[in-house]
Amino acid sequence: MALMMDAAEMNAFLGKVFLEVAGEYQVEAVSEASVTMRLLVQDRHLRPGGTVSGPAMFGLADVTAYMVTLAHIGPRALAVTTNCAIDFMRKPAAGVDLIGEGRLLKLGKQLSVSDVLIYSEGMAQPVARASLTYAIPPQGVDLAE
Amino acid sequence: MALMMDAAEMNAFLGKVFLEVAGEYQVEAVSEASVTMRLLVQDRHLRPGGTVSGPAMFGLADVTAYMVTLAHIGPRALAVTTNCAIDFMRKPAAGVDLIGEGRLLKLGKQLSVSDVLIYSEGMAQPVARASLTYAIPPQGVDLAE
Amino acid sequence: MALMMDAAEMNAFLGKVFLEVAGEYQVEAVSEASVTMRLLVQDRHLRPGGTVSGPAMFGLADVTAYMVTLAHIGPRALAVTTNCAIDFMRKPAAGVDLIGEGRLLKLGKQLSVSDVLIYSEGMAQPVARASLTYAIPPQGVDLAE
Amino acid sequence: MALMMDAAEMNAFLGKVFLEVAGEYQVEAVSEASVTMRLLVQDRHLRPGGTVSGPAMFGLADVTAYMVTLAHIGPRALAVTTNCAIDFMRKPAAGVDLIGEGRLLKLGKQLSVSDVLIYSEGMAQPVARASLTYAIPPQGVDLAE
Repeated sequence: MALMMDAAEMNAFLGKVFLEVAGEYQVEAVSEASVTMRLLVQDRHLRPGGTVSGPAMFGLADVTAYMVTLAHIGPRALAVTTNCAIDFMRKPAAGVDLIGEGRLLKLGKQLSVSDVLIYSEGMAQPVARASLTYAIPPQGVDLAE
Repeated sequence: MALMMDAAEMNAFLGKVFLEVAGEYQVEAVSEASVTMRLLVQDRHLRPGGTVSGPAMFGLADVTAYMVTLAHIGPRALAVTTNCAIDFMRKPAAGVDLIGEGRLLKLGKQLSVSDVLIYSEGMAQPVARASLTYAIPPQGVDLAE
Repeated sequence: MALMMDAAEMNAFLGKVFLEVAGEYQVEAVSEASVTMRLLVQDRHLRPGGTVSGPAMFGLADVTAYMVTLAHIGPRALAVTTNCAIDFMRKPAAGVDLIGEGRLLKLGKQLSVSDVLIYSEGMAQPVARASLTYAIPPQGVDLAE
Repeated sequence: MALMMDAAEMNAFLGKVFLEVAGEYQVEAVSEASVTMRLLVQDRHLRPGGTVSGPAMFGLADVTAYMVTLAHIGPRALAVTTNCAIDFMRKPAAGVDLIGEGRLLKLGKQLSVSDVLIYSEGMAQPVARASLTYAIPPQGVDLAE
């Protein structure tokens, strides 16, 4: 599957359509097989004890799956998550960013399926894994302008 | 299963151990069968267009499942989510709170399983459904003091 | 949502398009809100010790979700499961049938979402819960003739 | 994580404790990182049209996750699946076996988490993906004798 966007284009797209989260997420790398995202961990992502919260990990999984889909269909703001299954496996390390590694497993006309492994930066074992389904809007509906 | 906490005790517990989210979540009602939670929707929960974000819905599902578990085991800060499956079914209405209705399906020694329906306040059809598993710490480990 | 099929029509449909499983599954009751299915437990559904196997429980959840969808769209053989999340909560009782209680949470043009509770007949506590998404074929594509 | 069983030992274990499915599943390969399983597709696994059924794919995912767990803890018949999330992405090819590729993501004292990709033999794109949690019985409880 050919790539429709590179990392710089994806970061520009995020900054344009998701002002709310600009400064939180950053595309690190994109290849045909995968996308690497960074969650720039801030106070609002933390739970008592300094660990990253479940909703913040979910948010990273969600954005990573979105980006790995967009990498192959181009910028469409209206794609929506329809389903997510997530396993929280280890406590994230304190004081470091989270890294999401997403891969696209299926790109259909109406649905994409991808999975994501989430790591505390610098750790070998993932803290969470997630699989997500995105509903893709019909072409032409969404120009993200 | 007997109740170990009422709504007032659960709200006090939330305020004590989750200062970060005090003012976001509120226990509305608790019975032997279920817990009703409110997400007081604020700007930080919104996506472009004024709709509540996926992570905010996930967060409500997570807290609701936690509260319906605590209602039956009493206050333990260390219980952790191990798994969540969530379906996003409809766009939340703009300008209203979200309501989570949680029910406990299993309370074992090590795990609880519950499910949650999420509604935009005043709407008949749920916007999302979720099922969650919590790992329960051994008794005595966690006094939440 | 109006019903498009009653229990007798659903059993006839199952016998026609799923000869392989005729004699395994039986629609017990159908209402606007839910469908009740029975798995007539046979040797091939059992694991060592006489308990019903995971795949057999999954199969009941899958057929129940399919039937609760068809009850509202009418007979279409080509609907396919795209996603299932299932929690196995208790050991099924030996020597009794399994009962699936399905409810339809969303019926869209392309997707239906439902959830299912599975019981050992005569027991109060569910042995499993599942949520499933079905992709619905465009009208006219599938006459199930 | 060191391996506790090789492929021959795993096949012998399957034949001993799962007589019901002997002849259906076969361990093809095992490494520290993963297990490859084969479902020897038979008539009972098929749906109308000759495609492998959902329950048969679920069964393969379940056994693969079990085997990748046992590879690291040794033979224990009593481990039970507590949760599975599965996405059905493509129609399996007719007339060929299914191959499951499982990897262990977490091995805790009480729970293991793994994920599985399922392929029609000889195809590049997976037909399904699944993630599963197993509850591990305390050591000494289960000798599988």
